[in-house]
Amino acid sequence: MSKTIKRIGVLTSGGDSPGMNAAIRSVVRTCAYHNIECVGIYRGYQGMIEGDFKEMGPRSVNNIVNKGGTILKSARSKDFMTPEGRQKAFSNIQKAGIDSLVVIGGDGSFTGAEVFNSEFNIPIMGIPGTIDNDIYGTSFTLGYDTALNTVVEVIDKIRDTASSHNRLFFVEVMGRDAGHIALNAGIGAGAEEILIPEEDLGLERLLDSLKKSKASGKSSSIVVIAEGDKIGKNVFELKDYVEANLPEYDVRVSVLGHMQRGGAPTCFDRVLASRLGVKAVESLIEGKSNFMVGILGDKITLTPIDQAIKGHSEIDRELLKVADIMST
Amino acid sequence: MSKTIKRIGVLTSGGDSPGMNAAIRSVVRTCAYHNIECVGIYRGYQGMIEGDFKEMGPRSVNNIVNKGGTILKSARSKDFMTPEGRQKAFSNIQKAGIDSLVVIGGDGSFTGAEVFNSEFNIPIMGIPGTIDNDIYGTSFTLGYDTALNTVVEVIDKIRDTASSHNRLFFVEVMGRDAGHIALNAGIGAGAEEILIPEEDLGLERLLDSLKKSKASGKSSSIVVIAEGDKIGKNVFELKDYVEANLPEYDVRVSVLGHMQRGGAPTCFDRVLASRLGVKAVESLIEGKSNFMVGILGDKITLTPIDQAIKGHSEIDRELLKVADIMST
Amino acid sequence: MSKTIKRIGVLTSGGDSPGMNAAIRSVVRTCAYHNIECVGIYRGYQGMIEGDFKEMGPRSVNNIVNKGGTILKSARSKDFMTPEGRQKAFSNIQKAGIDSLVVIGGDGSFTGAEVFNSEFNIPIMGIPGTIDNDIYGTSFTLGYDTALNTVVEVIDKIRDTASSHNRLFFVEVMGRDAGHIALNAGIGAGAEEILIPEEDLGLERLLDSLKKSKASGKSSSIVVIAEGDKIGKNVFELKDYVEANLPEYDVRVSVLGHMQRGGAPTCFDRVLASRLGVKAVESLIEGKSNFMVGILGDKITLTPIDQAIKGHSEIDRELLKVADIMST
Amino acid sequence: MSKTIKRIGVLTSGGDSPGMNAAIRSVVRTCAYHNIECVGIYRGYQGMIEGDFKEMGPRSVNNIVNKGGTILKSARSKDFMTPEGRQKAFSNIQKAGIDSLVVIGGDGSFTGAEVFNSEFNIPIMGIPGTIDNDIYGTSFTLGYDTALNTVVEVIDKIRDTASSHNRLFFVEVMGRDAGHIALNAGIGAGAEEILIPEEDLGLERLLDSLKKSKASGKSSSIVVIAEGDKIGKNVFELKDYVEANLPEYDVRVSVLGHMQRGGAPTCFDRVLASRLGVKAVESLIEGKSNFMVGILGDKITLTPIDQAIKGHSEIDRELLKVADIMST
Repeated sequence: MSKTIKRIGVLTSGGDSPGMNAAIRSVVRTCAYHNIECVGIYRGYQGMIEGDFKEMGPRSVNNIVNKGGTILKSARSKDFMTPEGRQKAFSNIQKAGIDSLVVIGGDGSFTGAEVFNSEFNIPIMGIPGTIDNDIYGTSFTLGYDTALNTVVEVIDKIRDTASSHNRLFFVEVMGRDAGHIALNAGIGAGAEEILIPEEDLGLERLLDSLKKSKASGKSSSIVVIAEGDKIGKNVFELKDYVEANLPEYDVRVSVLGHMQRGGAPTCFDRVLASRLGVKAVESLIEGKSNFMVGILGDKITLTPIDQAIKGHSEIDRELLKVADIMST
Repeated sequence: MSKTIKRIGVLTSGGDSPGMNAAIRSVVRTCAYHNIECVGIYRGYQGMIEGDFKEMGPRSVNNIVNKGGTILKSARSKDFMTPEGRQKAFSNIQKAGIDSLVVIGGDGSFTGAEVFNSEFNIPIMGIPGTIDNDIYGTSFTLGYDTALNTVVEVIDKIRDTASSHNRLFFVEVMGRDAGHIALNAGIGAGAEEILIPEEDLGLERLLDSLKKSKASGKSSSIVVIAEGDKIGKNVFELKDYVEANLPEYDVRVSVLGHMQRGGAPTCFDRVLASRLGVKAVESLIEGKSNFMVGILGDKITLTPIDQAIKGHSEIDRELLKVADIMST
Repeated sequence: MSKTIKRIGVLTSGGDSPGMNAAIRSVVRTCAYHNIECVGIYRGYQGMIEGDFKEMGPRSVNNIVNKGGTILKSARSKDFMTPEGRQKAFSNIQKAGIDSLVVIGGDGSFTGAEVFNSEFNIPIMGIPGTIDNDIYGTSFTLGYDTALNTVVEVIDKIRDTASSHNRLFFVEVMGRDAGHIALNAGIGAGAEEILIPEEDLGLERLLDSLKKSKASGKSSSIVVIAEGDKIGKNVFELKDYVEANLPEYDVRVSVLGHMQRGGAPTCFDRVLASRLGVKAVESLIEGKSNFMVGILGDKITLTPIDQAIKGHSEIDRELLKVADIMST
Repeated sequence: MSKTIKRIGVLTSGGDSPGMNAAIRSVVRTCAYHNIECVGIYRGYQGMIEGDFKEMGPRSVNNIVNKGGTILKSARSKDFMTPEGRQKAFSNIQKAGIDSLVVIGGDGSFTGAEVFNSEFNIPIMGIPGTIDNDIYGTSFTLGYDTALNTVVEVIDKIRDTASSHNRLFFVEVMGRDAGHIALNAGIGAGAEEILIPEEDLGLERLLDSLKKSKASGKSSSIVVIAEGDKIGKNVFELKDYVEANLPEYDVRVSVLGHMQRGGAPTCFDRVLASRLGVKAVESLIEGKSNFMVGILGDKITLTPIDQAIKGHSEIDRELLKVADIMST
């Protein structure tokens, strides 16, 4: 039988994403609601190794539900990849009386948590926090919806210039090896073409599509490109290639970069973070461990964390067709 | 066997909502993609009665994916409630060669479509467009996600003042008889209490909650109130009641009003609109009629339109608990 | 000769406005830059009476340049209107070693500062912080530019609905007895008519203007109304009056309220706050007292604080003409 | 004596900027107000050469006051640099009955207008439209205030990530040879260091400043860099240089690019555009020519267009000091 949970540690790890603060707030307040203590661990696993902890009560998380970034800070920890590092981390949390962990981050962070659990048998629960939406077992990761809105708002601005000057813009967005941001923000922003890692249509198809777009009377075009796309050229080489082959096009490049990771979370991300935090804490209380909380359909669910790590988050093929039709 | 669809009419009806333009664009472009003609009908059913039509091709809907409101305009039509009105509408669309209809609107608009179909046997398909999210058969209506973000952004601003002055704010939001906006935006905005039509907790509970909030060390509070709540007092009477009973509170009221219906749609609403438009047109092509397209889980679905009209969109009770825990 | 300044107290008083935090940050960092100590006084004059102080260094004001509200909180203090209250306040700041004050607020706050200076001979400097822009001696008060943008963004959303439904909206904005917000935001939002306290055109002119607007082919209209306007009817009575006299109009009312006071300050307000804070502290160091810092033209200036209090901030009559032409 | 103006042509030229549409609207409606005809010329001087004109009345410019870009489109025209091109342009406008021109653009566009006036004696009036604020004779160009807000909003987001990860970000902003955007947005966004073309402090000073920043306890830093800065390295080389010399820093680069040119204009830009349009048209009516309208202090002014072209827009040195103090 599982031991009673008395004191939960919470940390954020990996790249930050909007909604992490809302998730921290939810974990802290759910602990308070159930009369469990809560300890914030700074800078992810590195702070665990350095013993950088802080007691947290419901008032510690006032006015953060709408803040981007993470008040607990985040870091990538090389030390935690060594047995010595993890041993030190475990000693620190033992000393601090922490008996279970909620880890907010991506699959790298979950892998760390799983290893830590296997070595020291401390209950862990994962909350998926990354803008890339590349995690199996949840339809939405924290920060993804916010990033989509950041991207479409920026492309809306770029389109003002594109259509004033009859230009073609290549806009590179984040997503690591996943095309979720590119595909959804591309549809949302009305892109004429979308290049994603999951679907290499080749350079010929891009040229064809741009020719067709011009012929159909469109005066300006936006092509959204995922950073991990497989077309074999980076976005600047692509510009040169298109200008060489389609001299009627005046191409500009915009690499959106880190702004996509920040900003006040959308309502969706705030509500999702609140729900996931409640589920994570209550699942630990119920004696569960080694799960990732997530949302599938409209329901908050648990996925074994090793499945979340190994599984692959697929793009929705229906959206490829929608994107194609929308660029008519 | 169903006749072949050649010429689709599209209209928006009832209160406008962000995403309606993206849905119009999707209907128009899906028609073009499948070599079907498309006719825009202005001002909903009233424009049908007055023969206010416009031929639409893929270039007619350039640069509207990100615009609030509806380029086809909307109206409520009393004439369409009479058999004479509907007969006139039918004559007009017959003359215009329109052989099927996509109706973007709420349940009132769907009722009109259903009656029209029953009388004249013209295939119809509904797309749920309303910020209230009060339609059975879809987890999200067009405009709802945008409205939630509008509301939380405004409450974020109000909270700046609330916490600078240690005040209590009552914020009234839209939603007709449904508490979806209030409940979700309330959680998203970190409201201390949320009053919705589906759950009348009574005035005592409100006072208790505010007392507890003060005692817990919170220096400011936001109470979100759905316009259709059942607490028996309007928001201004509620202010007076709370000030009379809890003199330690300095209460302000803000009625958000119509701004909630406007604004550029979020990425979510734009993608949803694009998907629903494709499904609506392709379903007509497949010979289907009398359905509402919607999203359930992550899938685009069809719900018989009479079920969509009669069914009741329930709030998620899990969210009530989450709201309660978050206000700890 | 003036004594050397060693320790400055800073407070915010009256209604909060965006940019107050940026001004606090500027005062604190300018003190640090000149090796002067700085003390934050909470809740305005009331905190002075209660001795609610906090030592502030450059790191105390990290990450607040973009936050609405005021981290020092604000309040209206009845006690400070009594000689006993002010005596107590003076004792507290003497005990705390505070030898001069920067007061961020409106004319009421400046009046308090002036009285305090006259009684206890402590050097004071005022920074104009209010969204109303109703202070003599500065072309812009802190928060005014932000409030204008908040208002036009909201009216942009309302216009989506107005033009989708061919409706008339009355939008009431803040400004106390001044029409600055209404006049500028009205022009910015493309209002058909603007009602301000400084110019009572009468009800007949409003009706005429609305008739002309309809006749000119406008399908929707926005009328912006300052809260202090002198037309003799509140905004709801105005709606009834117009509907009674112009039945072709379907009128809606939106009272924007407190959201206008909050939100992240615009770049203009952040830069202005930074400049005013530097000038306030450096003026105290130079031995000056009893001035309000402000901006006239492009220059940061000093205005004797009694002039700032007694003087009247006029609207720019050129803008009335521009508003009139723009509604053609 | 000057001829009576009967028919004004209006065009936008050069890079687009937010507020151009509001200026077009103002020109069109001021013409209508004074019973003068107005013709829109598409794609700047190129459209003049190609005779791409459109009659404009007050309803042609409905609902554009809040739109970025330019409905008249913009282009750079090589043909207009030849006498033959300009002769053709003149023939076209003569045929169209256009007797005077309002040119909205930057100094390149004004140079074209001045040459055209000297050759064909057609009255011209310039309105400064560029985000760079690099035009002599006006404190603000159209679009500059909007661009500043776009930049600070993006840097606010980047700072979320910077402070969550204790990182240093180099953010490159627009401005051609002028540091206005970098300097003002840098102060507004709380940048630790700002590199502008007008002030080359050298690489040593940058390193010193970053060392000091670290020593002072700042956990993250933003350096804003104008695209035309003179430090001798591009932003990516600068990153390498700093990482080589200050290994304690983990540097990221963000080049904001074209998004800075788009978006809905701020209230300030909308009001300024409205005022400048009125002044431009009324000055032509009064028989004036060869001026640029602008704003100096709070007043709308006229500057001889050759001075506007040759003059140099200086940065405000006071702001350099403010920036320095703010980074304490």
